[in-house]
Amino acid sequence: MKTIATPAGMQAWSRDRQADGKRIACVPTMGFLHDGHLSLVRRARELADGVVLTLFVNPTQFGPGEDFAAYPRDAARDLDLCRRHGVDAVFMPADESMYLPDHSIYIAEESLSGTLCGASRPGHFRGVCTVVAKLFNCVLPQVAVFGQKDAQQIAIIRRMVRDLNFPVEIAVAPTVREPDGLAMSSRNARLDADSRKSALGLSRALREAACAYAAGTRDSAAVLAQMRTTMERAGLRVDYAAAVDALTLKPVAALADGVLLAVAAFAGGVRLIDNQVL
Amino acid sequence: MKTIATPAGMQAWSRDRQADGKRIACVPTMGFLHDGHLSLVRRARELADGVVLTLFVNPTQFGPGEDFAAYPRDAARDLDLCRRHGVDAVFMPADESMYLPDHSIYIAEESLSGTLCGASRPGHFRGVCTVVAKLFNCVLPQVAVFGQKDAQQIAIIRRMVRDLNFPVEIAVAPTVREPDGLAMSSRNARLDADSRKSALGLSRALREAACAYAAGTRDSAAVLAQMRTTMERAGLRVDYAAAVDALTLKPVAALADGVLLAVAAFAGGVRLIDNQVL
Repeated sequence: MKTIATPAGMQAWSRDRQADGKRIACVPTMGFLHDGHLSLVRRARELADGVVLTLFVNPTQFGPGEDFAAYPRDAARDLDLCRRHGVDAVFMPADESMYLPDHSIYIAEESLSGTLCGASRPGHFRGVCTVVAKLFNCVLPQVAVFGQKDAQQIAIIRRMVRDLNFPVEIAVAPTVREPDGLAMSSRNARLDADSRKSALGLSRALREAACAYAAGTRDSAAVLAQMRTTMERAGLRVDYAAAVDALTLKPVAALADGVLLAVAAFAGGVRLIDNQVL
Repeated sequence: MKTIATPAGMQAWSRDRQADGKRIACVPTMGFLHDGHLSLVRRARELADGVVLTLFVNPTQFGPGEDFAAYPRDAARDLDLCRRHGVDAVFMPADESMYLPDHSIYIAEESLSGTLCGASRPGHFRGVCTVVAKLFNCVLPQVAVFGQKDAQQIAIIRRMVRDLNFPVEIAVAPTVREPDGLAMSSRNARLDADSRKSALGLSRALREAACAYAAGTRDSAAVLAQMRTTMERAGLRVDYAAAVDALTLKPVAALADGVLLAVAAFAGGVRLIDNQVL
């Protein structure tokens, strides 16, 4: 497995392989890898001849009061996991090789970014779009694999790929969960015992909503109110509970197949998200 | 020569050639080609095995009161010129294949775009960056050739390429002028006889400034005042006359080798620009 530190080195690695007709898949991550990430690697290996995992905690997608400094990091462990799971190259750029001091170009999405996580994290998706475009131009993949847990991110990145004509296919892998239902997230490492228990409120609220839908409930408002109650009872501070169209992220009044139920809540000081497509 | 109307068709054409190890050069234009554009094509042929000229009047770089509708167009003539000058493919997308009705992704440059043309054309360079990124992702060139006449555009596109890691080299070809000094521009076609005469004020002001510099003048303010006077006497309405660092576009108090003198002025209703590097 190759470890690559610079954009130019990464481009050269991919170009070499593509000159031999090889297909490259990219798995963008912020590191502190868990089974969710490793499921993306497995999917990437099915879709391409070479798998590049990117390991970069992107400063531009964190707001001033957010957890950039506290975001968990363990590069040695991440590299070991990559080695054992068949990653061909890890792109691990230094902050200063990704953002020069006079960096001044940003990519903004202006329709899907104001709602859900974007409403409470202004600038977050601008940072995400900017770094993903950079990673695409460094790795030059034919396909990139993202996790369903970040449903809004997927909608926005698909929009970016479409609107900027990136020659990259976007593949989505299902959310991987702990045995008790908690969606895997690097941020779970920051939960203390109480918050870890509260955190189950997110997946529980989604499961209950899916059951209500299966039982015939179609009224979004009623289902969302119940989801909020479930999360609050678990001890969570709710950021949002929403029922939206999975592509446009516009709220829907009536539940239907394909509708995205999405939640965000704070367990202790840790912000967690989860979602479920009906 | 191939004419290509869709982003997917363009990507396929370039990928085919690149699979054979061919190098592609892109010449982005808004059409109504003149000798300036054709000099870019010649430069592109020196730099690559295949030349793609793009022909697209980009709506997102025109402001509400600007000349998008009046911008001169003659696709038949442009295609004929391309054929006779060794262009291998013309990418000529329809507006609706470049911008879907719910297009929502824009690229903004936040340091170099507020000055010079950006000051009087808010949003212009956002449109330029967005469309150039799209064209790069459609044409997938190794190199793109731009004209020195659009000096601020070059600085901003270089910045975009650097900050988003586009694997594209930017080449610049000198401004081509009419025998009397007027910088070639598609917009010159919109000048009536009087305005055509006034338009000479731009290149005259730059020539005088270059002579003053050669004679030892270093005071920017004095030189810029003289440039304004020259343009006003020619009957132009001056938008700006500036002496700036060619990379940062920051004003310089003292003239020196490499400083960019840039002017913009209205001749009749037509906005013209020109520049000179000392």
